[in-house]
Amino acid sequence: MSEQAVTAQSEDFSRWYNEIVYRADLASPSPVRGCVIIKPYGYEIWEGIKAGLDRRFKETGHQNAYFPLFIPESYIKREAEHVEGFSPELAVVTHAGGKELDEPLVVRPTSETVIGEAFSDWIQSYRDLPLLINQWANVVRWELRTRPFLRTAEFLWQEGHTAHATHDEAEAETLQMLDVYADCAMNDAAIPVIKGEKSRMERFAGALRTYTIEAMMRDKRALQCGTSHNLGQNFAKAFDIRYLTEENAQRYCWTTSWGLSTRMVGAVVMTHGDDKGLRLPPKLAPYQVVIVPIYKSDEQRGAVMDAVERLSRSLDSAGIRVHIDRREGQSPGFKFNDWEMRGVPVRMEIGPRDVEKNNAVLARRDVPGRAGKQFVSQDGIVDVLQSLLVDIQRSLLEDARAFRDAHIQDVETCQQLEEAVAAGEWARAWWAGSDDDELKVKDDTGATIRCFPFEQPGGAGACVLTGRQSKRIALFAKAY
Amino acid sequence: MSEQAVTAQSEDFSRWYNEIVYRADLASPSPVRGCVIIKPYGYEIWEGIKAGLDRRFKETGHQNAYFPLFIPESYIKREAEHVEGFSPELAVVTHAGGKELDEPLVVRPTSETVIGEAFSDWIQSYRDLPLLINQWANVVRWELRTRPFLRTAEFLWQEGHTAHATHDEAEAETLQMLDVYADCAMNDAAIPVIKGEKSRMERFAGALRTYTIEAMMRDKRALQCGTSHNLGQNFAKAFDIRYLTEENAQRYCWTTSWGLSTRMVGAVVMTHGDDKGLRLPPKLAPYQVVIVPIYKSDEQRGAVMDAVERLSRSLDSAGIRVHIDRREGQSPGFKFNDWEMRGVPVRMEIGPRDVEKNNAVLARRDVPGRAGKQFVSQDGIVDVLQSLLVDIQRSLLEDARAFRDAHIQDVETCQQLEEAVAAGEWARAWWAGSDDDELKVKDDTGATIRCFPFEQPGGAGACVLTGRQSKRIALFAKAY
Repeated sequence: MSEQAVTAQSEDFSRWYNEIVYRADLASPSPVRGCVIIKPYGYEIWEGIKAGLDRRFKETGHQNAYFPLFIPESYIKREAEHVEGFSPELAVVTHAGGKELDEPLVVRPTSETVIGEAFSDWIQSYRDLPLLINQWANVVRWELRTRPFLRTAEFLWQEGHTAHATHDEAEAETLQMLDVYADCAMNDAAIPVIKGEKSRMERFAGALRTYTIEAMMRDKRALQCGTSHNLGQNFAKAFDIRYLTEENAQRYCWTTSWGLSTRMVGAVVMTHGDDKGLRLPPKLAPYQVVIVPIYKSDEQRGAVMDAVERLSRSLDSAGIRVHIDRREGQSPGFKFNDWEMRGVPVRMEIGPRDVEKNNAVLARRDVPGRAGKQFVSQDGIVDVLQSLLVDIQRSLLEDARAFRDAHIQDVETCQQLEEAVAAGEWARAWWAGSDDDELKVKDDTGATIRCFPFEQPGGAGACVLTGRQSKRIALFAKAY
Repeated sequence: MSEQAVTAQSEDFSRWYNEIVYRADLASPSPVRGCVIIKPYGYEIWEGIKAGLDRRFKETGHQNAYFPLFIPESYIKREAEHVEGFSPELAVVTHAGGKELDEPLVVRPTSETVIGEAFSDWIQSYRDLPLLINQWANVVRWELRTRPFLRTAEFLWQEGHTAHATHDEAEAETLQMLDVYADCAMNDAAIPVIKGEKSRMERFAGALRTYTIEAMMRDKRALQCGTSHNLGQNFAKAFDIRYLTEENAQRYCWTTSWGLSTRMVGAVVMTHGDDKGLRLPPKLAPYQVVIVPIYKSDEQRGAVMDAVERLSRSLDSAGIRVHIDRREGQSPGFKFNDWEMRGVPVRMEIGPRDVEKNNAVLARRDVPGRAGKQFVSQDGIVDVLQSLLVDIQRSLLEDARAFRDAHIQDVETCQQLEEAVAAGEWARAWWAGSDDDELKVKDDTGATIRCFPFEQPGGAGACVLTGRQSKRIALFAKAY
């Protein structure tokens, strides 16, 4: 919280990000390699995301449960693609209780295996289906390059795991949960995500199909915000998850899994933040309104604080998350900068004059300078704030959507694709390439297929690389 | 959920407990040694406990944060008593990302060390105090003998960690959080806990003083339900947690920690359960009311289900957690037994006759047979249920308190103490013994000092073992 200015986004986005994360007090470096400490201000944003997701999970019939952190090493090896995908990233417990273990235990990188084993035990007949389970948990993937929230060795997430009688039911569930993620991203986090399907190369290790929500950060890189996998019968076969049909036949189940993590906090920072710091969507902001009292003498202080306390109480009882900045010895200017850094949607200033006139000054974080300021009467201020918060929430989403749409280019040739990506933009193109073709684009441009968006133009066109006719467009971008 | 009867508590309490936990679907055995899977019905009870605690933590000014799962081995060793206390139970990660680690990482058994290190970084001056942090997390202690919820290698808990300027503030915090735990135990879980101080022998490894809430289970064993530790300056010195006073002097902080775990779910089972299964306090019951529709023909089914759906909606909008048992092919009798096993506080039966007469039958789980049944009009049933639930909550607490008080004996001699403990009772006695004396009692009787209760008779008396005058009575019991 020093007075020193933050690095400009345009100068060095990556440095800007790290500075914001630490100076806005979202996280703090930890002594453990690749891990960060999530500080209260960052954790509250996560609690907001969690609460919104958990409500939606329950509304769609899911129940929470908790499975072991440790997974026997042999389990991970049972699904061939899965072990290949996760082996390089595993952390392994070899000793416990002062002894070497007979079988090493892997710290879960994800729980398909141990939950698959449980499902095979819990599911007997069609009456037990669908089985709709979610887990809030920590997972560990030993990454080499880590960044707070975006990629850390340990992170917090939820992982949904479901089992169904048919392929179609599993597919419907996979898509439903993608919708739940998109709804949470758009309406709570004000992030305009694009729903789509991953290419074969980018699929979850062991999945039939992976769906994703992709967002554009302010440096125009893509961030995968959540994924939902139709696992087909791959895990059902590896873990013997079978059910008895109404006609007494044994069938393998169809399973799904889907996850969203604390990475979403990083998405909020990089979607809305500006050179002054965070801009938090009101629905997730730990404080929606901060009140900065302004006074010089003790006499002024008394009158101002009386008004401030009274206003704070009325905001609080209206369900607005309000905070009074009571710090002594800091100038109002310092406090204004500090709360702008922390991204509080609305700042309320109250000075002796305001008290006299029964007024207050409201300043929107998302509209800089005079344009974002208004003088309002203290009477009816709750209503004014309620609609202001709704407007800020809407406006952040619209800003982000306009920014995104301005930076997606339709391209028809390889050269155009390369140029678009080199300029930091996303490229949208017809695609009919192979895995190798996809790798070639990645090698040449640094961009990957983020997804085949659900929203397709229709018709067909020539693949940007191979020239073959294709019915699908793909989105290419450099990604986190 | 087989029809086979549960083992009677009086026959084999331990077996009764395991049967209830698995048959009421609270947990399921896991393939990982010493760990269980917490199933949705058990997890929802934990979610209820969590929500009640989290609200109280926030009301008392605490904020949630999240610290790394892994702790460098060297950290654990920095506080001498701490390492001695926890070393035998540690699980250790030696390999990660395909390589052997330079320094092994311990899976946290508790987080005083890593949080102490963070606090030393976060706290600069008196302005940063008090620092009031809580973490919801999983921890691992490699126990040899495990039992679902009561003692497992991995468990879920919260751990509060705070830093203060003075000893007295730390002491006040330690006691305040014990009150929070007691309030949650009594008012949410209906468990009449006894607040007190642990003896030196039973203190947390590295603490100045440990306070505890102790409860009596239905087999009369004691269960420690939550503890709150005044850590003095031990961790502050080991991790260099210092602050600058207003007068510019460097001082070590005074820290506290306090924890309550999923063990509390086991406490609910063993405090209220009977030979028919669980009896859940309404405040924590996933379902407070279960409706069992009763019909024979399809025609009856239509009319009954209409009434059932309508009643369910009105209960739901009144905030009552209601569940309709829609299972086909199971008799009402089977369903009654099943919900008694699962401890749902109130069962509502609706048959064709009830529909005709606009009635319903309500059966209390805590009052067996006819005495617990009443016929009520469907009009105004929400109000009847609201007060019934309040009454059940109160009645469970009173039952447990009466049971507990009936099984605590005041003893004056060693022989009386031995006899009381041999009869499975708790013994209350004046105590002025040493650590060795305490060990002797444990060796002779199997009982430990559960606590020196805050509620003391006053005056003084002769120590039950040494005969020395003492001003404190202690509670002795066999414990989980």
